[in-house]
Amino acid sequence: MSEQYVIGVDYGTLSGRAVVVRVSDGAELGTGVHEYPHAVVEDRLPGVGPDARRLPPEWALQVPEDYREVLRVAVPAAVEAAGIDPADVIGIATDFTACTMVPTLADGTPLNEVPAYADRPHAYVKLWKHHAAQGQADRINRLAEERGEAWLPRYGGLISSEWEFAKGLQLFEEDRELYDAMDHWVEAADWIVWQLCGRYVRNACTAGYKGIRQNGRYPMAEFLEELAPGFSAFVPDKLEHEMGELGDRAGTLTAEAAAWTGLPEGIAVAVGNVDAHVTAPAAQATGAGQMVAIMGTSTCHVMNADVLREVPGMCGVVDGGIVAGSWGYEAGQSGVGDIFGWFTRTCVPPSYVEAADAAGESVHQHLTRLAEQQVVGEHGLVALDWHSGNRSVLVDHELSGLVVGLTLATRPEDVYRALLEATAFGTRVIVETFREAGVPVEEFIVAGGLAKNALLMQIYSDVTRLPLSIIDSEQGPALGSAIHAAVAAGAYPDVPTAAKSMGKVRKAVYVPDEQRAEAYDRLFSVYLELHDHLGRDSDVMRRLKAIRREVLA
Amino acid sequence: MSEQYVIGVDYGTLSGRAVVVRVSDGAELGTGVHEYPHAVVEDRLPGVGPDARRLPPEWALQVPEDYREVLRVAVPAAVEAAGIDPADVIGIATDFTACTMVPTLADGTPLNEVPAYADRPHAYVKLWKHHAAQGQADRINRLAEERGEAWLPRYGGLISSEWEFAKGLQLFEEDRELYDAMDHWVEAADWIVWQLCGRYVRNACTAGYKGIRQNGRYPMAEFLEELAPGFSAFVPDKLEHEMGELGDRAGTLTAEAAAWTGLPEGIAVAVGNVDAHVTAPAAQATGAGQMVAIMGTSTCHVMNADVLREVPGMCGVVDGGIVAGSWGYEAGQSGVGDIFGWFTRTCVPPSYVEAADAAGESVHQHLTRLAEQQVVGEHGLVALDWHSGNRSVLVDHELSGLVVGLTLATRPEDVYRALLEATAFGTRVIVETFREAGVPVEEFIVAGGLAKNALLMQIYSDVTRLPLSIIDSEQGPALGSAIHAAVAAGAYPDVPTAAKSMGKVRKAVYVPDEQRAEAYDRLFSVYLELHDHLGRDSDVMRRLKAIRREVLA
Repeated sequence: MSEQYVIGVDYGTLSGRAVVVRVSDGAELGTGVHEYPHAVVEDRLPGVGPDARRLPPEWALQVPEDYREVLRVAVPAAVEAAGIDPADVIGIATDFTACTMVPTLADGTPLNEVPAYADRPHAYVKLWKHHAAQGQADRINRLAEERGEAWLPRYGGLISSEWEFAKGLQLFEEDRELYDAMDHWVEAADWIVWQLCGRYVRNACTAGYKGIRQNGRYPMAEFLEELAPGFSAFVPDKLEHEMGELGDRAGTLTAEAAAWTGLPEGIAVAVGNVDAHVTAPAAQATGAGQMVAIMGTSTCHVMNADVLREVPGMCGVVDGGIVAGSWGYEAGQSGVGDIFGWFTRTCVPPSYVEAADAAGESVHQHLTRLAEQQVVGEHGLVALDWHSGNRSVLVDHELSGLVVGLTLATRPEDVYRALLEATAFGTRVIVETFREAGVPVEEFIVAGGLAKNALLMQIYSDVTRLPLSIIDSEQGPALGSAIHAAVAAGAYPDVPTAAKSMGKVRKAVYVPDEQRAEAYDRLFSVYLELHDHLGRDSDVMRRLKAIRREVLA
Repeated sequence: MSEQYVIGVDYGTLSGRAVVVRVSDGAELGTGVHEYPHAVVEDRLPGVGPDARRLPPEWALQVPEDYREVLRVAVPAAVEAAGIDPADVIGIATDFTACTMVPTLADGTPLNEVPAYADRPHAYVKLWKHHAAQGQADRINRLAEERGEAWLPRYGGLISSEWEFAKGLQLFEEDRELYDAMDHWVEAADWIVWQLCGRYVRNACTAGYKGIRQNGRYPMAEFLEELAPGFSAFVPDKLEHEMGELGDRAGTLTAEAAAWTGLPEGIAVAVGNVDAHVTAPAAQATGAGQMVAIMGTSTCHVMNADVLREVPGMCGVVDGGIVAGSWGYEAGQSGVGDIFGWFTRTCVPPSYVEAADAAGESVHQHLTRLAEQQVVGEHGLVALDWHSGNRSVLVDHELSGLVVGLTLATRPEDVYRALLEATAFGTRVIVETFREAGVPVEEFIVAGGLAKNALLMQIYSDVTRLPLSIIDSEQGPALGSAIHAAVAAGAYPDVPTAAKSMGKVRKAVYVPDEQRAEAYDRLFSVYLELHDHLGRDSDVMRRLKAIRREVLA
């Protein structure tokens, strides 16, 4: 029998990436990438003149046609690069950023493609990082806490402005006519599957993490009506829909989508998924206690467990949210790689940049090389990694970054190392919070661009006292999608089984050194004291943000 | 009668500066500067190979011969630049950094000039910023508080590790042989006068502020013996000596010193003085409530008052410590200009340095120009200006710098402005502490290099709500010394009278703006909360320093 193949397509913030994967062993044979022509719309709507009204601050939109283009461009490119016969492809699956929301008509047409609505901002896709619904999120949280809504602890006590209800309520309140014209409020993760197979199926992952679906129910009408009169119809009218488990088949490839992609009509199309969550099987991390950290500009932590616990400050716990049949936990750190990037761009003097150039290194590599010569604690610094706020476990975007211990002898590599360590301490807080809540963490598996920094990885292992495994793929999300495609096509009975054959991980690449771990314990105790004082007891960070907003207004 | 002239010599941290001043009106006619060849010895002793043992952290030594070289080089250069006849010079006076200590034999020979001791770190001058005697200072403070020593409140409740007893006790405990060989433990301020006139006279200023001499007495033998067995002999054996008031004549120029300087043998040599204190008369600020801030790498605040009060955390109050007949108060900030310097050297990226170059500005000027375009609070930051520790009012060199409020949008000019403001907040804490203790502050007079920064000056005026006057001399300390030389030579009856003719000040150059002052109040409340939490309640900064010392040991 000839080899079979699957396609995984990873929809990121700025581009989509398709990968051809061999079903038998997960070999990645070819890749195609397509950048979204409209990227992120933050300034003005496409197709309007320069005189058009600018979008307000904190808005971040996208154009759905860009997503279809990925299917037409990146998928055929990947197939061609792989040199396979498209006839041997048995399934396709996708993962997406989340929570990214598409307002559609009953047939899935995005509202911005209805000519009458093309000039209305709310007709477009609200990208995950659209942060203009903070006021709505605040009201949701206040009211849910007042009413003691049972679902609130499933989200660590706080709903994000990025999620379905906050963004939906913003649309309801700011463009009621468009809201009324909308038939479905669709996760992009599900919308793209709808484009592929002609059928709208809500995936269990985003419905749970972003849609507040718990125990098969959404927040009750009474709560929504109290939130905003008329909003109680949001769930039955716009949100509620047929559900699909991760790895299930949503349908089969339509003739139209087959023409776009060059793939055979009728092959399996998997239920949608999220970029972070889909990475867990790609790293063979589908078991309880295997925490996967997707470390890039920010970090997302996903982990399965057999138990349901309320972990304070987690992003969420969802039944089947990562792998069907397990409780999927999610946590996160708002800023990681982007803090290091900001530091190298903004805080490093010419002499270092020149030395890096002379050595043929990036500034990151140069600082890392200098920093790794230090013993733990030598720089005398501790930083708080809250330059973009804190997602877990404080869930507070009003927090900010801090460096303490500065002296006139402090050098760039000192602060750089302190920032690396700070993000590791932030991860340790998350790991310990899970443990204290009764959800054990046994192994730490890293995916994402930062896995390449050996110093950073060793710090994480030493700080958390966990063995660190590294995903053995440059394109974890796409590989994870491919695994789901294989399961949807029936090549494997379930995702964990497929992950064993197709996922790739290098085990325990970094192991903790007890002497360094003990040295880090002392720095961590300083971190923790600052974390609790400035994150919980004192409001100085919030006051500084409030002052800044006020004087800039 | 022809004009008469005096020479003022200001011994700074890195160089000595001589100025020729006209006795009649204080005109500054010529200047000579000489940089110390050995600068500050922080790494290895001079004359040893690269394999020699490095000095421990926090050490800062100097070489006394460098001070003599200033007399041989800078004084003749100043006379030549002034174009005067040296025969018309009637006196010379010096001021020095303090507390800077020289261990000497009975004839004033510094121990490092004894060949057998040249390789022993403790034989060298301990510069004011030698901070390795913190352990000794801690014990002095603990015991003094336990025993309720009456002198303790005269120093705001805390003795500094920079002062005579802490540094002396370190020598006693770490190199007992050298301690036993030492005949005098001499302030450099007095040692240089000894070189000029061949006579050792202790000046009232350093004896009071740095030597714990109050009401004519030093700490009692019983206290010292309890501190360290055998140390009770420190006062009679090494410290106690003939005293001189400021402006008194210590002696006359020896033939040897006349040969060094090219000045007439036998002219008046004034009692030694300290760079900060000597600046008050140079700015005509000899009255009660006139706080003089000498703002350079660090800031020293000096002020006369008619009343004796115990101000918590001040550096000291000394009878005749600034002007004979008044209570002289001193406070200080350990790091000011050196923090700004460290930031511009270490934390500013190439694009800013290039933009500064292109605009023909220094990096300081460039950042200042960018920072002054902001409204108060816009950067969302607050810093603690403790990169070199905190002298007043916390008196703790284990403290360190901090920046809070950092985001990925934080720019170099934001942090720079926050650092400028932090030092102003530090000054406000001092001013308010004096007021609350019953010592009013009515005017703020600035001397030193930072007076040139108009943004910084306006911030100080707005933050303290005080009118800011600026000394009208580029070389305040040397001018102040010249005033003392004129008094020692008998040209004026006393220092205040001489200051009226020879001192120079521009009054109320900056006045506070109430709207900005109110905006700063909000940032100051954040500063004060962090100040009290990290300076008093929490020990995280101390722990970080302890960890650093330990791992480097």
